[in-house]
Amino acid sequence: MYRETYLQIPGPTNIPKPILDALSSKAINHRGDEYAALMEFNVKHLKKVFKTKNDILIFPSSGSGGLEASIVNTLSPGDKVVAINMGVFSKRYGEIATSFGAEVTWINQEWGSALNPNRLKDVLSKDFKNEIKAILLTHNETSTGVTNDLHALIRVVRELNHPALIFVDAVSSLAITDLPTDLLDIDIVVTGSQKGLMLPGGLSLISVSKRAWEAHNNASMPKWYWNFTPMLERMKVGQMPYTPVISHFFALKASLEIIENEGLENIYNRHKQNADAIRNALEELGLKLLVSDNKYSSNAVTAVYLPDDINYEDLSKVLEDDFNVIIGGGLQQLSGKIFRVGHLGNLHKPEVIAIVTSIEISLKKLGYNVTLGTAAKAASRVFLNN
Amino acid sequence: MYRETYLQIPGPTNIPKPILDALSSKAINHRGDEYAALMEFNVKHLKKVFKTKNDILIFPSSGSGGLEASIVNTLSPGDKVVAINMGVFSKRYGEIATSFGAEVTWINQEWGSALNPNRLKDVLSKDFKNEIKAILLTHNETSTGVTNDLHALIRVVRELNHPALIFVDAVSSLAITDLPTDLLDIDIVVTGSQKGLMLPGGLSLISVSKRAWEAHNNASMPKWYWNFTPMLERMKVGQMPYTPVISHFFALKASLEIIENEGLENIYNRHKQNADAIRNALEELGLKLLVSDNKYSSNAVTAVYLPDDINYEDLSKVLEDDFNVIIGGGLQQLSGKIFRVGHLGNLHKPEVIAIVTSIEISLKKLGYNVTLGTAAKAASRVFLNN
Repeated sequence: MYRETYLQIPGPTNIPKPILDALSSKAINHRGDEYAALMEFNVKHLKKVFKTKNDILIFPSSGSGGLEASIVNTLSPGDKVVAINMGVFSKRYGEIATSFGAEVTWINQEWGSALNPNRLKDVLSKDFKNEIKAILLTHNETSTGVTNDLHALIRVVRELNHPALIFVDAVSSLAITDLPTDLLDIDIVVTGSQKGLMLPGGLSLISVSKRAWEAHNNASMPKWYWNFTPMLERMKVGQMPYTPVISHFFALKASLEIIENEGLENIYNRHKQNADAIRNALEELGLKLLVSDNKYSSNAVTAVYLPDDINYEDLSKVLEDDFNVIIGGGLQQLSGKIFRVGHLGNLHKPEVIAIVTSIEISLKKLGYNVTLGTAAKAASRVFLNN
Repeated sequence: MYRETYLQIPGPTNIPKPILDALSSKAINHRGDEYAALMEFNVKHLKKVFKTKNDILIFPSSGSGGLEASIVNTLSPGDKVVAINMGVFSKRYGEIATSFGAEVTWINQEWGSALNPNRLKDVLSKDFKNEIKAILLTHNETSTGVTNDLHALIRVVRELNHPALIFVDAVSSLAITDLPTDLLDIDIVVTGSQKGLMLPGGLSLISVSKRAWEAHNNASMPKWYWNFTPMLERMKVGQMPYTPVISHFFALKASLEIIENEGLENIYNRHKQNADAIRNALEELGLKLLVSDNKYSSNAVTAVYLPDDINYEDLSKVLEDDFNVIIGGGLQQLSGKIFRVGHLGNLHKPEVIAIVTSIEISLKKLGYNVTLGTAAKAASRVFLNN
């Protein structure tokens, strides 16, 4: 028996066939012309996806490596930064900064809610000497399914004329939710290969503004592997300071071709529509979503409270055994309280219908009271009304 | 037209079909049972290849990332270490230590020669207070084609009863040249995925001894991504602290099956025989090898002086255009002086004959005086006599 897998964790995503095929491209010389052309293509097209004219650097690492790179390249021990604790990954960004000796001012925001711009305003307003060097923002918090309003948050910084650099963790937002890097003048945007780009993990991709480069020149945190300077120098001549992940470079080209073919705005809209359909279906099933203010609902992942008397292990087991649908659980303080449905990447209407209905049947099998067909009906209504 | 590629740079290597196929395995849940089983298989079989019972950690990064990880996890700023400058990669290991504030004592060894154990003995003998914390050794120096005699070097450390930790960069030696980690009681062994393991770049693999773990507990160099503690903790429960390179984990399994099937000792012997055949052929062609003492000749790569009046660009171009054979050039101070032929990974007799003969014809085409058939004859003689 062979069954299609529905990998509905919030990344890594299902990998489209052309990207899978590209992964098994034969090895090429990483100091040769073919490699240089491949990298040039990827950087050129990544700039469109990042919506930036800034430099793009690509590191062989997970997305978290890119977060670390952003810190150690631009800051010095003792530098003041603002970090947000609103979920596992926003907290991680601040923890990385702390590990390297930054002095972190934390804004604690309840997990499941978005960062309130006024809280950021309060912190910056008290920074009379403009000592805060960087603000670490998470565009989409993967552990809660909250998408921050970057426009509103960055407006606060600009209105105060605060000179802090703005860093954005876009690991689960790039090529999923609109992120106008240059329009918002974001200094560092970090993503990973395994979310909107639909590759396996293994690459972190970073855009670096002119101001971030200036900060880099004065940054004294120790670094070798992550050092931006040799990375940019080598990339400019079509190479890398160390061996690149060539398989992923072929796959990235395939991904960027798929993205260009669909068009970024269409991709954002498709994600929005799928997310709305999934949330509508889950709410029709009587489930409660973790994010109560749908203005901040993520287009990449939806976190759902587990119904009374149904635990995550049972639900995920039925979903996997009966439907080969793989969902994610709650992380850290949300463990055992929620389940998460990823809906990022190469997901379309038929899969959405299949997924929400699989959840419905699984819940019913576990004793949850629901009328069959409810989820499909609710999702279909969203598709028909768009 | 489709022509087979002979990627004879000293890594990344040609990738065998079963490994290429495994790279395009579909995405799986990195927090699920299938992933945990895959990692368990890989770690178990890697221990055989590393010849160790020590812990094995796997980082999403190039091999150079593994070198950085070994430094920042075991040392504190100001710690004294010994590093060797005998080529690009041994120098790199010391430079990484310097970047993080280690106090490096350099042993400068002429590029193309092996580290003389007496030079190491001199340095350690003068360390009356046993202040040197670590010795950074490179098993095979990829830029020169020199393989150090680890037995002799480590014997020096043991005979002096010096307590320094011993780190070995085995990026271009693991699964190529015998490296008995536990027999030699090596504290840290670092390799990358793109050499003897025949994968694309993208993984660094590190063995960590009990003494290295003890050093880790007192090491204050800043770290987050490379931190051994969460990596081991998460790996023990079948996960990672961040998204792994799942494609490479499938490929690594395929690689370890190929390696187990051939047998490590057979792999070492095959590499030795291929290397002897290639060197015999190149010398019969009247070329001069960079490594004059063949006791230290690498089984992974051979560096060859360019003949008078033939430059690297011309030679590599003819080899690529006419034969699709890709060789490497000299790096840094050896640029323009040598070319390098990689003979690591999945290389067998027919390819060896093809490669040395391609070099012979290319040289003749560029005006070099040689009798056709010389290289094939010389390589064949080695094969027949073994």
